[in-house]
Amino acid sequence: MVRNGPSLESLSLNQITTENWNLKEAVAGCVKAEISWISLWRHKIQEVGLAESKRIVADSGLQVSSLCRGGMFPASTAEQRQKNLDDNFRAIEEAAELGTDVLVLVCGAAPDRDIDTSRKWVEEGIEQLVPFAESYGVKLGIEPLHPMYAADRSVVVTLDQANTMAEKYNDNQVGVVVDVFHVWWDPDLYNQIVRATGRILGFHVSDWAVPITDTFKARSMMGDGVIEIRRIRKAVEQAGYNGPIEVEIMNQAIWDKPGNDVLSLIKDRYVKHV
Amino acid sequence: MVRNGPSLESLSLNQITTENWNLKEAVAGCVKAEISWISLWRHKIQEVGLAESKRIVADSGLQVSSLCRGGMFPASTAEQRQKNLDDNFRAIEEAAELGTDVLVLVCGAAPDRDIDTSRKWVEEGIEQLVPFAESYGVKLGIEPLHPMYAADRSVVVTLDQANTMAEKYNDNQVGVVVDVFHVWWDPDLYNQIVRATGRILGFHVSDWAVPITDTFKARSMMGDGVIEIRRIRKAVEQAGYNGPIEVEIMNQAIWDKPGNDVLSLIKDRYVKHV
Repeated sequence: MVRNGPSLESLSLNQITTENWNLKEAVAGCVKAEISWISLWRHKIQEVGLAESKRIVADSGLQVSSLCRGGMFPASTAEQRQKNLDDNFRAIEEAAELGTDVLVLVCGAAPDRDIDTSRKWVEEGIEQLVPFAESYGVKLGIEPLHPMYAADRSVVVTLDQANTMAEKYNDNQVGVVVDVFHVWWDPDLYNQIVRATGRILGFHVSDWAVPITDTFKARSMMGDGVIEIRRIRKAVEQAGYNGPIEVEIMNQAIWDKPGNDVLSLIKDRYVKHV
Repeated sequence: MVRNGPSLESLSLNQITTENWNLKEAVAGCVKAEISWISLWRHKIQEVGLAESKRIVADSGLQVSSLCRGGMFPASTAEQRQKNLDDNFRAIEEAAELGTDVLVLVCGAAPDRDIDTSRKWVEEGIEQLVPFAESYGVKLGIEPLHPMYAADRSVVVTLDQANTMAEKYNDNQVGVVVDVFHVWWDPDLYNQIVRATGRILGFHVSDWAVPITDTFKARSMMGDGVIEIRRIRKAVEQAGYNGPIEVEIMNQAIWDKPGNDVLSLIKDRYVKHV
């Protein structure tokens, strides 16, 4: 069944949205706002350590929707690519320890002018991770990024690409993550969402305001931009996804606001626009 | 035959690259630099008027590779869409008057949250232009823009889309314009260039430096970024395109340099990187 408005029970705070909060503050903020899911970032976990992070989350009763992020496979040297891969093994262990079965992959860019080779490195990297991830019960969620990040963050830029890569594996091993900010422009979006049925491991929301003035911190609060968020959410649900919906917004103005106000605004906009 | 380096005889200055020059200065700059093609922008033509523009270009002996730009079809009201269409009729007349057979179309964005409807308006707009353009001997070149412009400049964001739209018409009516900055990230790029054989009406070069700090004035001089320009140029030539190659760079730092120095640098980078 496809809902009209989403249930607030599905709302997850992606921790980057409250970048000025540490892990403890973000967890407390969610509890106070009665948000029952959180997506954790590794740089926030490192600040307090894995064991303490695990304790903070467990004590709160929050569920962890995903760990951000693995990936970043390409590098100019084989040595660096191996280091990057090793870091992904650690990320899988962390995801399992923190109680989530989804590791989000931001696949990485081309270190020089050869985008095809970088795409090959991404595929090889995932291939090496899969058995290890499966042994931990962790699924790899390939997140296609907006093409404006092709040069510095991800050579995987369409849901078509992500689907093709994921389909080489079982759906309990590798899937895709659909982030409205990254995919809304794609003329083939709704076909690719149908194609991803059974493999959607995450759904992220934010908005694209006009004009964007920064490329990394480019996202806006839902309702402040042009993305047909509700239409995409319904398509994702029709493709069988009924998991948590992460609000993931890199935006300096939002970061600069008091976190509790941001969570309050998120809940309001979530009901109205997601 | 596919050349290794391109011939300087193919080099065309897209006038936006020397935005601080008026038409007369740009034409004189090209003559001095022995560049034999120029692509004209309508806001520069308006400054001096069409008749005077025509005279300046004719006296110089320069050839006009294209007129920038038609398009911008979508609008919230039928009245405004008709106005936009009327402006396209004028652009066709200007192109013919200035002696070029290519009008570049930047198709326009969605005025609100409905990207599918805007795409339909673009198709309807082109359909209405085709007979008029043909009667003037002017071809419509659909230029897919980078997806980062989907919200404010073009809902046509892939060469696949542009090809599909162009194929509804004869190849002397509608074709596509390939700009490396807009298409380099596309996993399907080389297939789509092959598909465009016989319909490529223009080829534009610039580069994508990392990081980009502005979205509109985001382009860099060839060689300063990550785009495989030469590979794309060879693919376009293998698809039968042997027309002028426009250097089209919106970049404040380049605009702020003396135009003659910019043309000199363009020639150097063109031989090395295109």
